Amino acid sequence: MEAVNREPIRVGIAGLGTVGSGTVNVLQRNSAEIARRLGRPLEIIQIGARRDNPHCDTQAYAVTRDIFDVANNPDVDILVELIGGTTVAKELVLTAIKHGKHVVTANKALIAEFGNELFAAADEAGVMVLYEAGVAGGIPIIKSVREGLAANQIDWLAGIINGTGNFILTEMEEKQRDFADVLKEAQALGYAEADPTFDVEGIDAAHKLAILASIAYGIPLQLGRLYIEGISKITQADIQYASELGYRIKHLGIARRSSAGVEMRVHPTLVPKESVLANVNGVMNAVMVSGDAVGPTLYYGAGAGAEPTASAVVADIVDAARAVGSPAENWVAPLAFHVQSDEAVLDIEQVETSYYLRIQVKEQTGVLAHISKILSDSGISIDAILQKEAHCTSGVVPIIILTQKVEEAKMNHAVGQIEALEESCEPVVRLRLEHLDLEI
Amino acid sequence: MEAVNREPIRVGIAGLGTVGSGTVNVLQRNSAEIARRLGRPLEIIQIGARRDNPHCDTQAYAVTRDIFDVANNPDVDILVELIGGTTVAKELVLTAIKHGKHVVTANKALIAEFGNELFAAADEAGVMVLYEAGVAGGIPIIKSVREGLAANQIDWLAGIINGTGNFILTEMEEKQRDFADVLKEAQALGYAEADPTFDVEGIDAAHKLAILASIAYGIPLQLGRLYIEGISKITQADIQYASELGYRIKHLGIARRSSAGVEMRVHPTLVPKESVLANVNGVMNAVMVSGDAVGPTLYYGAGAGAEPTASAVVADIVDAARAVGSPAENWVAPLAFHVQSDEAVLDIEQVETSYYLRIQVKEQTGVLAHISKILSDSGISIDAILQKEAHCTSGVVPIIILTQKVEEAKMNHAVGQIEALEESCEPVVRLRLEHLDLEI
Repeated sequence: MEAVNREPIRVGIAGLGTVGSGTVNVLQRNSAEIARRLGRPLEIIQIGARRDNPHCDTQAYAVTRDIFDVANNPDVDILVELIGGTTVAKELVLTAIKHGKHVVTANKALIAEFGNELFAAADEAGVMVLYEAGVAGGIPIIKSVREGLAANQIDWLAGIINGTGNFILTEMEEKQRDFADVLKEAQALGYAEADPTFDVEGIDAAHKLAILASIAYGIPLQLGRLYIEGISKITQADIQYASELGYRIKHLGIARRSSAGVEMRVHPTLVPKESVLANVNGVMNAVMVSGDAVGPTLYYGAGAGAEPTASAVVADIVDAARAVGSPAENWVAPLAFHVQSDEAVLDIEQVETSYYLRIQVKEQTGVLAHISKILSDSGISIDAILQKEAHCTSGVVPIIILTQKVEEAKMNHAVGQIEALEESCEPVVRLRLEHLDLEI
Repeated sequence: MEAVNREPIRVGIAGLGTVGSGTVNVLQRNSAEIARRLGRPLEIIQIGARRDNPHCDTQAYAVTRDIFDVANNPDVDILVELIGGTTVAKELVLTAIKHGKHVVTANKALIAEFGNELFAAADEAGVMVLYEAGVAGGIPIIKSVREGLAANQIDWLAGIINGTGNFILTEMEEKQRDFADVLKEAQALGYAEADPTFDVEGIDAAHKLAILASIAYGIPLQLGRLYIEGISKITQADIQYASELGYRIKHLGIARRSSAGVEMRVHPTLVPKESVLANVNGVMNAVMVSGDAVGPTLYYGAGAGAEPTASAVVADIVDAARAVGSPAENWVAPLAFHVQSDEAVLDIEQVETSYYLRIQVKEQTGVLAHISKILSDSGISIDAILQKEAHCTSGVVPIIILTQKVEEAKMNHAVGQIEALEESCEPVVRLRLEHLDLEI
């Protein structure tokens, strides 16, 4: 076998938690094969970490307790930011950029919140900031959208991009368990944090969707323009009613472009049971991307975990290593487009979807006629109705309605009128419904 | 919106059939968005085609009837070979390489058969030869394996990579139709050629698998070392028995690496009904790739068609355009590895798989005992047995056996002994069975 005899690319790693230790382990175990792919070795020359990690043997490496040593180290070609958070991480990344180092990060919050600023700084310094590991773990979804589908106008993309939330919804559906109960188990298993807000309220998914939408449509990162709804209010009742009607509830991140503008939204969504996304279970991730030339495509794999995430981190290190010595104008743009668009992002009120409505009413003649009239007057067509028997003591009847596509503003108006009916006894539960056109 | 003001990259297209016209149409329709992604325009400056194509308006372009004009045109930066075949196409590509042009092709036969030679010529001339469209149409599987999973040692990959064959098997299973009958329909629909050998005998899939195995393991293209079995002998009986046992028959291309060497094989395969590949239907393609860091991943989409294939062709044109002005040593290697391996490719006799056996015997006491003893003496463990009632007139009984993993040489020996039994009345039908560990 021919030797790999180019000079090594020198890597500095900041952070030695789950992903940091996974990255060191993968670089160590697969160094020979990676060098054969790249045509030159990758060499970890420094690791910055406040403490050691028992999952990772760092004896062979220079370890510093001050992560800024790594960003300031003149011998480091590529800084790998794996400390998490957005305050110190941002300072660290800006320091590395200032010193002319390429940066690889797994930090979706950092990119979603401060990406525009970081990419501008990187552009000025002539370095790359890569973040494949930030979205859907080991699945090469950033590369696929940014490069593999470069020929396409992306019509829409939709993904299960938070494994914790998907684990909770899968358990709730499969075992008829309640949200709070499954959340506790997810915390015990280490899938959910002690404070689960980021995962269950959709914030983590929103970070990822903001990134995907930017690289799909060439728009700047606009986390603040994203509609975010989590899964903490999903009840067993809605899971069961959805199931009776042929749907599963999944937490999706969706971006879509129409002539009106770009939609960006993260929310629980009813999807047909036979659709592929309905069948992505547990902590797995999957993203569908539909382009005007390629049609619908799907990317599936582990969305988290030490080594799946490290797989994406190391792929980025390899990409950055290939950039050393190439003109920056030839690089893939950080958000896929060298020339960005100022296309409008729609307010959620302007977005059209189908809906699932659960309306709790006092059993009374004529109530369905009243509801139907309100929907019809608002221009909302009904696709399916499920009326259950009254609860024996309360006399409250749930009426489940699936609607055709309608603008959210119209639905808000109709829901307000329904809630004002004297027969109405609870706020209307309203979930969005999507017919994704990729069935397996 | 900022303007794209770098000089255009000049593209020459040879061939204006289905993929050629799709490529021209995609480049035309999406030119502005592609230019924003690339940071410079792509401009078709010449098209070589023996005849016009009604699906494509070429009035705006310089069209020549001699495709070699395009390969010889000094103004062309990237030659796109879409004429098909391996004789003229090879000469055309070598001509373009000699003139220092990058080459993009959708021609899997050309790459699988002559890739080693073409890549050597390209290396010498300092140009790229890209072929994403050759495998699985619009799915960016070459890019994913070559770059997205660069951190991994690939344990195995398995794919449905021939849409025609998958359409036939899907129809056979769903509608209990016979092979010959469905083949005729596939021909009428334009999915299969008048001479369907390439698709139904597994040759097209073998071309693609040879390419995938090379980029997964860093070995030279070795089409001749590949085991190839098509679907033309699959019967309705075997589809039904497999179904009763919980399996579907799919035509898979499989590459796997063990300590003994690399396996490359294309054959009908029983896969569990709940596995994701069992649920890829019709003309769709899907490839699973399992790496030691990332675990199993899946890539799904349209494997053929004018615009899905054009999506991959144009992605390659964009990649080649980015290479103009970058040092060749920084490029992704044509077969993923700058340094190839001389790892052994196993003979099919050395490969271990599980098996489905259908043994036709005369109904007679003790026959199952004889068969069981032969298998047991050969070290083959039985996983399941299905014995059907005798055919009323012939008295022939089918015995279906699923085995655990065993080396093919041992199975050959056992099958020989079973066929030599006096109760045996037909050659044993033997299909391979794989438990792919990615379930949805």
